[in-house]
Amino acid sequence: MNKNDFAKTPPMGWNSYDYYDTTVTEQEIKANADYMAKYLKEYGWEYVVVDIQWYVKNAGARRDEYQYLPFSDLAMDDYGRLLPAPNRFPSSADGSGFAHLAEYIHGLGLKFGIHIMRGIPRAAAHANLPICGGTARAMEAADPYSICGWNPDMYGVKNNAAGQQYYDALIAMYADWGVDFIKCDDICDSWLYRGTPLAFSGWEEMRMLHEAIEKCGRPLVLSVSPGPAQLEQAWRYGAYANMWRMTDDFWDDWGCLENMFARCEQWQEHVKAGCYPDCDMLPLGMLGRGFGGERTCNFTRDEQKTMLTLWCMFRSPLMVGAELTKLDEDTRRLLTNRALLSLLGEGRRGRQLARTDAYAVWLNTGSEEEMTAVALFNLSKEPRKISLPVKELPGFAGENELCLLELWEEETAAVCQGVIEALVAPHGVKVFAVTEKRR
Amino acid sequence: MNKNDFAKTPPMGWNSYDYYDTTVTEQEIKANADYMAKYLKEYGWEYVVVDIQWYVKNAGARRDEYQYLPFSDLAMDDYGRLLPAPNRFPSSADGSGFAHLAEYIHGLGLKFGIHIMRGIPRAAAHANLPICGGTARAMEAADPYSICGWNPDMYGVKNNAAGQQYYDALIAMYADWGVDFIKCDDICDSWLYRGTPLAFSGWEEMRMLHEAIEKCGRPLVLSVSPGPAQLEQAWRYGAYANMWRMTDDFWDDWGCLENMFARCEQWQEHVKAGCYPDCDMLPLGMLGRGFGGERTCNFTRDEQKTMLTLWCMFRSPLMVGAELTKLDEDTRRLLTNRALLSLLGEGRRGRQLARTDAYAVWLNTGSEEEMTAVALFNLSKEPRKISLPVKELPGFAGENELCLLELWEEETAAVCQGVIEALVAPHGVKVFAVTEKRR
Amino acid sequence: MNKNDFAKTPPMGWNSYDYYDTTVTEQEIKANADYMAKYLKEYGWEYVVVDIQWYVKNAGARRDEYQYLPFSDLAMDDYGRLLPAPNRFPSSADGSGFAHLAEYIHGLGLKFGIHIMRGIPRAAAHANLPICGGTARAMEAADPYSICGWNPDMYGVKNNAAGQQYYDALIAMYADWGVDFIKCDDICDSWLYRGTPLAFSGWEEMRMLHEAIEKCGRPLVLSVSPGPAQLEQAWRYGAYANMWRMTDDFWDDWGCLENMFARCEQWQEHVKAGCYPDCDMLPLGMLGRGFGGERTCNFTRDEQKTMLTLWCMFRSPLMVGAELTKLDEDTRRLLTNRALLSLLGEGRRGRQLARTDAYAVWLNTGSEEEMTAVALFNLSKEPRKISLPVKELPGFAGENELCLLELWEEETAAVCQGVIEALVAPHGVKVFAVTEKRR
Amino acid sequence: MNKNDFAKTPPMGWNSYDYYDTTVTEQEIKANADYMAKYLKEYGWEYVVVDIQWYVKNAGARRDEYQYLPFSDLAMDDYGRLLPAPNRFPSSADGSGFAHLAEYIHGLGLKFGIHIMRGIPRAAAHANLPICGGTARAMEAADPYSICGWNPDMYGVKNNAAGQQYYDALIAMYADWGVDFIKCDDICDSWLYRGTPLAFSGWEEMRMLHEAIEKCGRPLVLSVSPGPAQLEQAWRYGAYANMWRMTDDFWDDWGCLENMFARCEQWQEHVKAGCYPDCDMLPLGMLGRGFGGERTCNFTRDEQKTMLTLWCMFRSPLMVGAELTKLDEDTRRLLTNRALLSLLGEGRRGRQLARTDAYAVWLNTGSEEEMTAVALFNLSKEPRKISLPVKELPGFAGENELCLLELWEEETAAVCQGVIEALVAPHGVKVFAVTEKRR
Repeated sequence: MNKNDFAKTPPMGWNSYDYYDTTVTEQEIKANADYMAKYLKEYGWEYVVVDIQWYVKNAGARRDEYQYLPFSDLAMDDYGRLLPAPNRFPSSADGSGFAHLAEYIHGLGLKFGIHIMRGIPRAAAHANLPICGGTARAMEAADPYSICGWNPDMYGVKNNAAGQQYYDALIAMYADWGVDFIKCDDICDSWLYRGTPLAFSGWEEMRMLHEAIEKCGRPLVLSVSPGPAQLEQAWRYGAYANMWRMTDDFWDDWGCLENMFARCEQWQEHVKAGCYPDCDMLPLGMLGRGFGGERTCNFTRDEQKTMLTLWCMFRSPLMVGAELTKLDEDTRRLLTNRALLSLLGEGRRGRQLARTDAYAVWLNTGSEEEMTAVALFNLSKEPRKISLPVKELPGFAGENELCLLELWEEETAAVCQGVIEALVAPHGVKVFAVTEKRR
Repeated sequence: MNKNDFAKTPPMGWNSYDYYDTTVTEQEIKANADYMAKYLKEYGWEYVVVDIQWYVKNAGARRDEYQYLPFSDLAMDDYGRLLPAPNRFPSSADGSGFAHLAEYIHGLGLKFGIHIMRGIPRAAAHANLPICGGTARAMEAADPYSICGWNPDMYGVKNNAAGQQYYDALIAMYADWGVDFIKCDDICDSWLYRGTPLAFSGWEEMRMLHEAIEKCGRPLVLSVSPGPAQLEQAWRYGAYANMWRMTDDFWDDWGCLENMFARCEQWQEHVKAGCYPDCDMLPLGMLGRGFGGERTCNFTRDEQKTMLTLWCMFRSPLMVGAELTKLDEDTRRLLTNRALLSLLGEGRRGRQLARTDAYAVWLNTGSEEEMTAVALFNLSKEPRKISLPVKELPGFAGENELCLLELWEEETAAVCQGVIEALVAPHGVKVFAVTEKRR
Repeated sequence: MNKNDFAKTPPMGWNSYDYYDTTVTEQEIKANADYMAKYLKEYGWEYVVVDIQWYVKNAGARRDEYQYLPFSDLAMDDYGRLLPAPNRFPSSADGSGFAHLAEYIHGLGLKFGIHIMRGIPRAAAHANLPICGGTARAMEAADPYSICGWNPDMYGVKNNAAGQQYYDALIAMYADWGVDFIKCDDICDSWLYRGTPLAFSGWEEMRMLHEAIEKCGRPLVLSVSPGPAQLEQAWRYGAYANMWRMTDDFWDDWGCLENMFARCEQWQEHVKAGCYPDCDMLPLGMLGRGFGGERTCNFTRDEQKTMLTLWCMFRSPLMVGAELTKLDEDTRRLLTNRALLSLLGEGRRGRQLARTDAYAVWLNTGSEEEMTAVALFNLSKEPRKISLPVKELPGFAGENELCLLELWEEETAAVCQGVIEALVAPHGVKVFAVTEKRR
Repeated sequence: MNKNDFAKTPPMGWNSYDYYDTTVTEQEIKANADYMAKYLKEYGWEYVVVDIQWYVKNAGARRDEYQYLPFSDLAMDDYGRLLPAPNRFPSSADGSGFAHLAEYIHGLGLKFGIHIMRGIPRAAAHANLPICGGTARAMEAADPYSICGWNPDMYGVKNNAAGQQYYDALIAMYADWGVDFIKCDDICDSWLYRGTPLAFSGWEEMRMLHEAIEKCGRPLVLSVSPGPAQLEQAWRYGAYANMWRMTDDFWDDWGCLENMFARCEQWQEHVKAGCYPDCDMLPLGMLGRGFGGERTCNFTRDEQKTMLTLWCMFRSPLMVGAELTKLDEDTRRLLTNRALLSLLGEGRRGRQLARTDAYAVWLNTGSEEEMTAVALFNLSKEPRKISLPVKELPGFAGENELCLLELWEEETAAVCQGVIEALVAPHGVKVFAVTEKRR
């Protein structure tokens, strides 16, 4: 198995976090999966991902004090592996974990993903549980100095035989359940850990998880969080993971989005088949119920298009954060723009042609017969005319006339010569398919 | 109670760490106390301190892998308070904690001290034990994000009512036992935590301990470790503690000792009654059994005198790290120099007059009728003539003749005029009692 | 000469910067001196200080682009010493520098101060001028890697014989002129230099200036800027300077003032005769003409009282930044509160008793027969009752009745017992002279 | 002109620094060029580069105190452009700069390069010289806050019209001289500037130089120094420069070489036609005369091979630092290994397959019909068997037999199957051309 074959194009799917926080239930997962199968699957959307703390029975309690309850009530098997909380995921009550839910989602023609925290439950370590199929016990796998800075559930796993046994047992169970995608948290990097001498075993654990996946025999896509990932470690992410977060949690405010242009600039050389620097979830539509109040996305429609265009030009994974069952018509249209989504296609490549505080220009190209796309982003608060000399477009002779098809408007702009130019709305984008005019 | 009255002069005593590491037993404590009572008490030595992990039954096991065993076997009462390991401290087998040992030491006319780690045992938190005399439980007092960077036993205590209840209960128990001195670790500061965003509750916990001591009704000297303490927080240490460590652990190598001159320079204004920046233990005589091999102090005799002289000129607490029962004659003489020890006396004050890479000069003064002492330290590897213009000595007229009595040699140096000067051995010191010659 | 005798109490005076920026003229200096002699002198105000770039002929030109013109037109003697720009200071046209102006100010019974930048003019170094009375030339004294981060006029002076010759010649000239006070800039410390490996010779230059002052035979008060001074270097400031800035430039916004409480907390142990951590100038009354527009102080009257009270309780130097000739009655009253100013008196001492985000309490004491003052500061935006248990006041028996005289209102508050308490306005202060009631 | 066409493969040449420091003369340059033409040109070596301070007449004076004399005697034209010191480069005495020397080198079929410092001479700024062909003067182009941390000659150039005029005039002059290659120093990045808030205009100046080169009409290769370049700025280097240094100055000690493996790991995705992360000069053969003593390279022969192999596998530029006229036979053979040098060829690509503290494995591939090379590096001090599973080699079926030709030994290793394996000397390398065995 070559992990780069598990995801030859950037994964597309839905994730429960932006709407449900820690509280999603089986019924809610199924409802979102149903929607995806019915309305989005044909456009390439396929992953349904249950995000953080599905193993906590009282998740969401005392939410004004804690996002993650300390010393909370976890569902766990006799080997220190966390299980779905049966009160929230009734189909797991028979001890089968997520197997029934995975089966349901597979039945819709979709794929099933789960979030996990790096490490082994602290409760398992203090109880010194045995490791399934292993010779060691939890106490030998757990590193009491390796904790997560924002979630109290786990200890890091040591880079030793006991630790590998634990991860092997864990991944084997997930493979049995039919899991297709693992988003592992507290393992990629974080501002929180920069300059911290406290032991951080994350990078070794990423490799250990990769090895466990290779052993399990099932193509399990590995997504690592949170960011910002370290550029200096790019090679490591590429060797062991399929996706890695370029940022801290992304939310729907312009500062985060503007900032993503700098990150895409830095990571653009690292996008390859099976290796995807990740712009994080798309906080669209209805959001935030678990965070204290349901609300709609704060981005303007122009900003939403800018976000989707950048993610596609760069070739980031696409994970929708909306509650799908409440998706409005307009947002759904954003997610089902075939021409734009085609930029994620196999063998394509995105790169930045220019960036200032006021604007950015990106290029996305494929093989010779495929579309060449140029995106003009307006990062300023005023409408702005943005232009690109055609001579900077590889493969185009500057003197020929070009046809420009805007992908959001789906209409042909005036034919141009020498320079591609457009008036772009504040925080907005124009993205063109560019072709030479045949005479 | 005013905590500054608990220790009107810098505490003097013995600590088990430098010889025993984590492994000292009741019998060994008593033997050292006996020695102190017999040979040192009359010079002002009085504290006998049991250092770290007296609550761990198998302390010292797997010492090549760990100084502090993770998930080790702790003695603990039903309220999450650690108890002396009964296999090591047999008199505690009746549930009386250190009461019998304290009584023994008090019977010798000495005082009894213990080391504690900041926080509440992780085991108590995961078992959610009740708090003695309190309304809350361990889970509410423990902060799962607040760990020590080098010892795995505890969680930090939250700055809330449950946390204060825990500390009140803890200190009340210690007062019951008859404890006179608490060395609290992981609470002062550490290089380890600089720049770390992981929650560090140490400063609040120092205040909470202080409040618990005020409530307990017993004058309990509070010593906080490890260092280096932060100069910016000097006011806080002075408000809540009696001693605070200026350095990371001090050991018998010249680099550590040389470095102490810079620290004393920085902290000199902060030495006051009940408030002592602490140079750390004196690693003299026999050391290191618990660290893998008994050995004698690595300092030369000149370096030992330099250390003791600096500690006394600066007015640091003095805690001997030697195994007292194996003390050689020469080292005992170092510890029983009455003239030198008198520099610690009430109302006296030390200050640095000069420092370069090659030498340092300190002054220690008392009231007008008391001794004025001047120490000339040679920080270099070569013998060096060091001099001080008399006009820089407050209270002395530069033109008069002075008598100089060297405190280690106990002999009068040649009378001098205008300048105090001496040839000092490499890493050595000359310390003079200075008086004007009467005609 | 002992530099600590130059200023036995914190210097009090006026400085041209806050109103004039770089542009003040001889006439304006005289007008302010006249005002001081007439209205303020009797309260202890005595220094008149000409601030930065008095040697620049076209100072203030292109002010929208530069505060300090690069490669500007400097007045300089043949030995590379800067002279007053004769177009701005006409009395210097005869080559006597500031001698005539100093004479004028001395004639008013006041003292004369000037601002200088650390170093030697870059123009002198590139022209390789000789050093007055020295054997070396400018090129050997100047360090081309030692520049100021915000002013382009100077190179740092090397710690070598040529450098000392330059500083000796410079200070000798100032002494000849009759200068009483030097505010040397770019020499204390600055955020700008933290973590910078570019050579920073400031600390050695501070010592070299001190030595030059000792040689010159005139008691020249040395004030060093900018801040924040480093606590770790406290001993050095105390050895070589009379005042050192605790902050970056202080201006009239609440954030700066609130922040000063933390700095006073840190530096309180370091206030001694001849050694004054400096809270910086008092930006009162009319300000800012040279900065682009004359304006009145932004502080509320309560904040102004808070500022003056803190400066006095702490015993900071007091340097008014207002244009004195435009001083309003109320502000003048602030500056002439005899009782408050008496807190600066010889032998007194200030210290912080408590501080939270919401309030601070300071104590200022003198000898037994002198006033004990307690200040209750409200750091919050709401009126707040602040109290202090009398038992925390050294020298007072908690059970006796106390009389409280508020120093701003000059009225006796109700007699109190056990606790001193007052309702304090937002950002305001109550400062009480406390005495025990005699029966 | 597209700057990526100036150097379609990594530049290969010789640089005067490692042997001559600041002191090289015209005669010495010619002698090295003659050698290159005679012995190395046919293998692809072509650039002859005059390194730092060719404009300083007394370069090398007071070498024990300074590498770069402050306020030294510079040759400069009336427009503030530095000229070759005529005492060292006699052919420039007619005012033609390096034109005659460039002509000589071109006559040998080679290319001519020079080192420059970012910025404009401080002497030009303080004299306020006019800018050639421009409307502005030096004072407007020079930034007095922008200095180099280790060389005192220049001020940075401002990002304004005057600054661009200066660079345009400078590059136009170099183009007139016939310069083919510019190594610009103090412009790439440096440890020295990390975290420094002092103005650093380097990145804008890199762009300004690029624009000046585009205007000058001559294909001038731009190499930027020193390193370590910032990964976050990779896009910028790629847009404006042809080569950028990944490290601080590289010298012949193992630590530097070992460290380069980590840097190559980080930069491997950024090697493209016209864009070369640069491992720095090859300190081989005779070195160091200008640094205080001629000496031979400190690397063992194995380490030398490791260095050359890594540079070639990674596709770094190759610049020899040796004095060529003293090159020994063995070292010349290292530099003329055609098979190894072919790894630099157009369209090839290097990447790391594995790295630990003990070993590293690199792959270098071209088009299908071209050589596939695998290098096994031993980073440890002991001989070590290093192996690579064939399945990790893209394009090879794991089960077929492979032929391995070692490129240094030029001999066929035993045919292998499934795994490529070799015993490698300490700090040494085996580099194999890998082909599938045809039956």
